[in-house]
Amino acid sequence: MLKILRINTRTREYRFEELGQYAGLGGRALTSRLVSTEVPASCHPLSAANKLVMAGGILAGSSAANSGRTSVGAKSPLTGGIKESNVGGQFAHKLPRLGLLAIVLEDKPEAGAPFVKLLIKKDSVEFLPAEDIVGKFNYPAHDVVKSVFGEKAVTAMIGPAGEQCLMASTIQFSDPDGRPSRSAGRGGMGAVMGSKRVKAIILDPEAKDAVPMADPEKFKVARKRWVDILTSHPVTSQGLPTYGTAILVNIINEVGALPTKNFREGRFAGVAKISGETMTETIKARGGQYKHGCHTGCVIQCSQVYNDKDGNYLTTGFEYETIWGFGANILVDDLDDIALMDRLCDEAGVDTIEMANGMAMAMEGGLVPWGDSKAAIELLRKVGTADPLGRILGNGTSFIAQAFGVDRVPVVKKQALPAYDPRTVKGVGVTYATTPMGGDHTAGYAVCQNVLKVGGDVPAMGKAGQIEVSKNLQIATAAVDSLGLCLFVAFAVLDTPDALSVVADMVAAATGKPCTVDDIVNMGVNTLKDELAFNKAAGFTIKDDQLPDFFKNEALPPHNTTWDFTAEELQAAKVG
Amino acid sequence: MLKILRINTRTREYRFEELGQYAGLGGRALTSRLVSTEVPASCHPLSAANKLVMAGGILAGSSAANSGRTSVGAKSPLTGGIKESNVGGQFAHKLPRLGLLAIVLEDKPEAGAPFVKLLIKKDSVEFLPAEDIVGKFNYPAHDVVKSVFGEKAVTAMIGPAGEQCLMASTIQFSDPDGRPSRSAGRGGMGAVMGSKRVKAIILDPEAKDAVPMADPEKFKVARKRWVDILTSHPVTSQGLPTYGTAILVNIINEVGALPTKNFREGRFAGVAKISGETMTETIKARGGQYKHGCHTGCVIQCSQVYNDKDGNYLTTGFEYETIWGFGANILVDDLDDIALMDRLCDEAGVDTIEMANGMAMAMEGGLVPWGDSKAAIELLRKVGTADPLGRILGNGTSFIAQAFGVDRVPVVKKQALPAYDPRTVKGVGVTYATTPMGGDHTAGYAVCQNVLKVGGDVPAMGKAGQIEVSKNLQIATAAVDSLGLCLFVAFAVLDTPDALSVVADMVAAATGKPCTVDDIVNMGVNTLKDELAFNKAAGFTIKDDQLPDFFKNEALPPHNTTWDFTAEELQAAKVG
Repeated sequence: MLKILRINTRTREYRFEELGQYAGLGGRALTSRLVSTEVPASCHPLSAANKLVMAGGILAGSSAANSGRTSVGAKSPLTGGIKESNVGGQFAHKLPRLGLLAIVLEDKPEAGAPFVKLLIKKDSVEFLPAEDIVGKFNYPAHDVVKSVFGEKAVTAMIGPAGEQCLMASTIQFSDPDGRPSRSAGRGGMGAVMGSKRVKAIILDPEAKDAVPMADPEKFKVARKRWVDILTSHPVTSQGLPTYGTAILVNIINEVGALPTKNFREGRFAGVAKISGETMTETIKARGGQYKHGCHTGCVIQCSQVYNDKDGNYLTTGFEYETIWGFGANILVDDLDDIALMDRLCDEAGVDTIEMANGMAMAMEGGLVPWGDSKAAIELLRKVGTADPLGRILGNGTSFIAQAFGVDRVPVVKKQALPAYDPRTVKGVGVTYATTPMGGDHTAGYAVCQNVLKVGGDVPAMGKAGQIEVSKNLQIATAAVDSLGLCLFVAFAVLDTPDALSVVADMVAAATGKPCTVDDIVNMGVNTLKDELAFNKAAGFTIKDDQLPDFFKNEALPPHNTTWDFTAEELQAAKVG
Repeated sequence: MLKILRINTRTREYRFEELGQYAGLGGRALTSRLVSTEVPASCHPLSAANKLVMAGGILAGSSAANSGRTSVGAKSPLTGGIKESNVGGQFAHKLPRLGLLAIVLEDKPEAGAPFVKLLIKKDSVEFLPAEDIVGKFNYPAHDVVKSVFGEKAVTAMIGPAGEQCLMASTIQFSDPDGRPSRSAGRGGMGAVMGSKRVKAIILDPEAKDAVPMADPEKFKVARKRWVDILTSHPVTSQGLPTYGTAILVNIINEVGALPTKNFREGRFAGVAKISGETMTETIKARGGQYKHGCHTGCVIQCSQVYNDKDGNYLTTGFEYETIWGFGANILVDDLDDIALMDRLCDEAGVDTIEMANGMAMAMEGGLVPWGDSKAAIELLRKVGTADPLGRILGNGTSFIAQAFGVDRVPVVKKQALPAYDPRTVKGVGVTYATTPMGGDHTAGYAVCQNVLKVGGDVPAMGKAGQIEVSKNLQIATAAVDSLGLCLFVAFAVLDTPDALSVVADMVAAATGKPCTVDDIVNMGVNTLKDELAFNKAAGFTIKDDQLPDFFKNEALPPHNTTWDFTAEELQAAKVG
């Protein structure tokens, strides 16, 4: 039976606990239940009362395809609400090999206490000095860790932005290539880790035991069908593996929903230079990889290795949202510059969506000219340094806007909006407005039904059907995140009648407990209920479930759409 | 009949409007009614939809003692709620001489539009270029204005902090000596003015007509009794005129409620060096003035002229809260340094309470050492400059705390708390928590009953009676602010049985409309209702009516008191 490891970062006590009231949960279901149960909703997110939870999903450690996602939970310094930040990398599959379902960081040391590295073993935790990596960017810091713990060291680490407790800061997880490239990006989880003075968590490289399945034969059958499902749907078997998520650049631009110049227009003149097709051609020409998995066991392979002009590694996990944000949204059409900005965010440890919208705020505020990617790069280089401007930038979109007096701020619950204009893709707008996470596309990706016509066909620009589709996706996503599955399995699941029962079969075979499709749906519903209850206790109301006024007041070219849902209408998208 | 002047800062159109639905209102009653009626609660405070209202009280322009306060209203960039920032100076008494009850700045120019000076005349508004004063500190900018418009020019002006739309920015109003020393300090009203690209408002020096009273004889009688009341109460006739509000330094320290080192203790070892008594002795020795009025017609004279060691003017309006904030709260006991910090705040145009708590945040965050006044001065000098650190600081306490990862942040509704620890003076804690203004002592100054034993005796450290006393004071204060009276008249009013009926008589005689004590109370109640309705529409809930957790979790020496009101209990302090 897996356990929860609780570590008191002040007293340095730790204990390996039975699951108790958390039995049967995993991933986001676990992080959100634990945070909503144990963290006072009124606490300051950087105070000792907050807890940082890292959990594998229910299928973590199994050989189920795409089951290696990690959920990171806490009260968010960015939104002030509950947060689950979902991330790839090797962490989730390694945890069960240590007998662990989750790690919880509790309390906090005195101000100014030295940072530590935590080495997690099967029955102990070592507090190691971190002066060898403090202040370092993530890649060089991870190189130091690898020099001690081996090339395959599995880590979760904060960059200098997290050390400074900046609200856009990430926790970077190591990928199969031993790079700290996978970001638990949203909501400032790195700041929570930084407040507890933990620079890095290292999972004992010696722990290699296989994780037993309760019913190995049944699991094998279900697992095989699961792979078939993922490898036969065109999105998960062709689109994503070939072009990555950047396949969306052209698609969303064509739809007229690619937010351009801080959500002023829906199409970008420079789109051809930053499209997924261009990215893949560029990668091929430079000897990179256009198919790449973020964790062992991934069959979708939407990641990539993007090299610079000289063929040297530049970045990976180069997502559509990043390309949009540092591209169309700030009028930049230089893919290499965008890739460098992606890398710089991973180095300092800050969320690309926050930072990209933040660059738009800096441009709105007159700090640097629109479209000036070199100037934006210089700004990003300041994040995590002693420069006060770096502190402003690293605190994210809303903060930057406040610093520079900008009144056109694309955030919901203070979290920056991603790459789909909600006026033209209204289903995702419903998600932005109503998910407990704050502005977040992944929480209910209605782009499926609105644009890709996966899992149904709900016209993108109308209001009809959007509430229902967002609500159902929010439930499904919460379940997927709890299982530890990659969200992208949803493309195949939505179009495959037996997919959910296959997932239920895998869960039952892995855990030895009965599991139905209803159980999985209920897991999603209950997780959302936990999250909404926390946010309500933290003071969120219907007024927080709305987009900024400018989406209502300004029509978006080319379709001249406006946002026309009232907050009252939107309430129906929340589980009751 | 007085009018409202509406100025569109984008189109440069203006109109002098009849009062219409706003007839019978003045001061805070008017600003809060207008803002709650005309400003969308969901708007961004720096957007075109916000409006900045400057209004004299109902008794403005009359010869009633202490009736020259101005109310400045808008949606606050700092709190996100409604704001009335109350200020002395010559503005309110000058407005009626131009036939005006209020000025409303509407809309906003394009980003980067040049700042203007608005010259307000009886029947016209001139948009004058402001390049001669843009970027200047308030004192030198005001000198330029005086060189054109005369020594007695009556102005409302923003400093460089307001130009940058920083959330702690003030609007500085000119005093009887022609200095821009009076701050509409709280809630970032300067940022709203800055967003509308208005650097200064200048009231036509030629407008000198007396303001007629409807019943001059009746007014004369009531006015005389009013002066008698104010000049016979010991607080308004002796304490405040001799020591200013700084008389409280020793008193509150003795009570054990002088917040020291960011609200960690209730007494300050260096108190003798920063007391009101010391201040007055220092002023006398250097040829300053220890009795001074902030506006013509003041009989209390709690202000002063504080000179530096060489006998040169340093500052005025040197309040207890400022001395506390830059003194005990950051462990500074050098009164000259505190006075310089006060002056620097007036120069850049930022609120001393926000900045003083902000300096505590900078010290918590390790930016400068505790007690290092020279370092704090250097920080303050950055506010309003191009230095990004200045932008962080000028955005106030909550923002600075976020920038530097500080989790012990003394704010309510994001507004910094003043100089009375709420654990030991619980009545004022109730006010901090429940006033629609955010953390604010003036909104319901229960220090009267808790400490000074004016208007009753409610033990400071108990819970009994605090809710009721705060509620009644909140109502009374809203009425006082609507009449345009100085809040300090309350000391005398609370202890004088006929005082309120004398005030009602003055109103009736001035306006020619019947006015009873009940009418005055209702004015307070209705104003609070308007404000609470706006805040509710803006998303505020019961969760916002509470002090930060650390007041509940940390006992305050020397009495080891904690804050023990639940948010539910506190609701009774709000008008129903």
